[in-house]
Amino acid sequence: MTEKRSVADFAVAGGSPQFSKIIPVGQLYFPSWDRYEAAMRDIFNRRYYTNHGPLLERLEARLEAFFGVRHAIAVTNATIGLIMIAKALFRSGKILVPGFTFVGTAQAISFAGLDPVFCDVDASTHHVTPESLDRAFEPDLRAILGVNLWGGAVDFGSIQHFAESKGIPVFYDSAHGIGSSIGGRRLGSFGLAEVFSFHATKVLGSTEGGCICTNDDDLAALLRNMRCGYGMGRIVEVPVTTNGRMSEAQAAIALMSLDDLDEHIARNQALAARYAAALSEVPGIELCEPSGVDFSNRQYLVCAVDEDTFGLSRDRLARLLKAENIYARRYFFPGVHRSVPYATQYPQYLDRLTTTDALCSKLIQLPIGALVTEEDIDAIGGVIRVASRHAHALQRYLT
Amino acid sequence: MTEKRSVADFAVAGGSPQFSKIIPVGQLYFPSWDRYEAAMRDIFNRRYYTNHGPLLERLEARLEAFFGVRHAIAVTNATIGLIMIAKALFRSGKILVPGFTFVGTAQAISFAGLDPVFCDVDASTHHVTPESLDRAFEPDLRAILGVNLWGGAVDFGSIQHFAESKGIPVFYDSAHGIGSSIGGRRLGSFGLAEVFSFHATKVLGSTEGGCICTNDDDLAALLRNMRCGYGMGRIVEVPVTTNGRMSEAQAAIALMSLDDLDEHIARNQALAARYAAALSEVPGIELCEPSGVDFSNRQYLVCAVDEDTFGLSRDRLARLLKAENIYARRYFFPGVHRSVPYATQYPQYLDRLTTTDALCSKLIQLPIGALVTEEDIDAIGGVIRVASRHAHALQRYLT
Repeated sequence: MTEKRSVADFAVAGGSPQFSKIIPVGQLYFPSWDRYEAAMRDIFNRRYYTNHGPLLERLEARLEAFFGVRHAIAVTNATIGLIMIAKALFRSGKILVPGFTFVGTAQAISFAGLDPVFCDVDASTHHVTPESLDRAFEPDLRAILGVNLWGGAVDFGSIQHFAESKGIPVFYDSAHGIGSSIGGRRLGSFGLAEVFSFHATKVLGSTEGGCICTNDDDLAALLRNMRCGYGMGRIVEVPVTTNGRMSEAQAAIALMSLDDLDEHIARNQALAARYAAALSEVPGIELCEPSGVDFSNRQYLVCAVDEDTFGLSRDRLARLLKAENIYARRYFFPGVHRSVPYATQYPQYLDRLTTTDALCSKLIQLPIGALVTEEDIDAIGGVIRVASRHAHALQRYLT
Repeated sequence: MTEKRSVADFAVAGGSPQFSKIIPVGQLYFPSWDRYEAAMRDIFNRRYYTNHGPLLERLEARLEAFFGVRHAIAVTNATIGLIMIAKALFRSGKILVPGFTFVGTAQAISFAGLDPVFCDVDASTHHVTPESLDRAFEPDLRAILGVNLWGGAVDFGSIQHFAESKGIPVFYDSAHGIGSSIGGRRLGSFGLAEVFSFHATKVLGSTEGGCICTNDDDLAALLRNMRCGYGMGRIVEVPVTTNGRMSEAQAAIALMSLDDLDEHIARNQALAARYAAALSEVPGIELCEPSGVDFSNRQYLVCAVDEDTFGLSRDRLARLLKAENIYARRYFFPGVHRSVPYATQYPQYLDRLTTTDALCSKLIQLPIGALVTEEDIDAIGGVIRVASRHAHALQRYLT
């Protein structure tokens, strides 16, 4: 890894890539082989591979203690979890959701047979606010699906107050939020329910996986009976069932990942601090701090690119970095209201979500997590800094 | 394991259980630890855990060759696969499905926002027939969801002919059917699509998992785009997306299980032959052979209990066996048309599915698969034989 000095040093201009192998954007923490092997040998010896086994039970109990919530219901993945909540609560109707989110948030509403209504977000926090919700409010909304981004959170108090004033529940997509806290209270017990993702790209990973948290006993009973066709916990009649089971192998990895979570978060925080130093002098690059929490898992490293000041657009910077084997990512892009099929199905949102559109055009995710080192970050910072200096000359390689 | 001689020897009457540990009913085949360890170390070294990785690609290619089908789309589990097909094809309407099936078959229809219409099955094959479909037919049906049971199959030709005469497609829940064949053609390429289960209780297992097979390029493109929010194969607009991804670890286990499949099936066949010998002399117990195929995976060992001849009802026999640590299972029970919420939602089927009701009251599944030996089967046969001889005296322990 040598520092770039001239335009010709950049991979887009024919130079060598900064990294010889790809630096992925995601978290990708995983337990050590020795611990993984021991856990899997245990499953082998028991010959019990799935369907509410001992590891799943242990995981749910530990998650309930961790989140400080009455029910943690482990599921196949977070998307299925969101679909299950929507199906458990409603058979039809509209749900208010920000356009600035992962497309799966809104698709979960659609998959459940409900209709998303899109609202905008706040430009500085990237989160929904009572004001952004109110501007998009429609009288026949059944619920609000809030989204907690980047290891931060909405202002729970004001959102709860708004939802209560409208007489509808609010639940959260907290896929980014495990381990983050506000006033010592971790995400997981806010609103009617929160859904967490344990995907490999999250700070707590089980390859695929997730969990639903709720303090509502009735909702929990519905979800447990929906998850695999009755049979677990209190039996209640549910509108539909599915297969949302998490296997024992997934539960084993999640348990080990929970053991390691403090360490993962500390590493993320150190890496984020290194980025802050490495990018502090770069004009037109602004690090976005997770908002609404006083302790963040720093699962994402988000920057805003000001094209005029930096000299390259966000899209061109992403392309330049990819050539260097730095898998920075435009995320979220496009806004969900501009994705298939919503852009044509609900064209009314195309000119309403101006902040979402602005964020989608300027934010970039830089690599953070298990597979990036502090030295890598210094090098990434160097690439971005030198790219800004030579922005004008680099343009022709990025058209 | 000593043979029972008197009533007092039975566990329900205070005797020792025939088995000191539980004999589960399911398949529960799993690769050897050494091969499992090698596969997982590979995934560790690659640090690529999910989302269309190299093992998933290899698995799908191998499944396509195995099934002789253009598209095999690996999914989280078979239930999600069925839901995805229903969602891909229709936004509303009714689908004809047998009441004699796993509740998840019908629930997949409901979860997709469609309505099941229940038909009966044939008493000897347990499968739907053109006659049973025709008796339940309604003019506004959108499709038929056939079910292939016990490692057997429907009469594909006559079902296809019936569906074509009505101008609607037929697709299949083939969760029981991997490896079974008719005239040298394996299940997997019949109808518009077939869905297979790789659950641990199936002859090809990946703990949780499954796949959708289809020769229809357009349906395959829809399903691949629905599976994880676009991105794989030809991009086509889909009504909704979900997360139906199979992880690399699941794919690795499925690949090893595919390597072992012939061996698993041969073992099942030998065990089934042993049951035939062990139960041949027992009055009122009839082994049900998988119908409609000339080679069966023998994934299930199904018996019909004639209460009058055998001396105990099926339910009492199941209870007696459980006390002996033999986890025989009433399956399917009840008929799906009698399950929550269908029994109250669609009461019109309660007196129409007489064959389904009869089968649900007399069939029992006996243990077959990795965790049962030929000697175990001799002992299970002995328990059942002696129970029949002492049926009258045993009744009082089973009320």
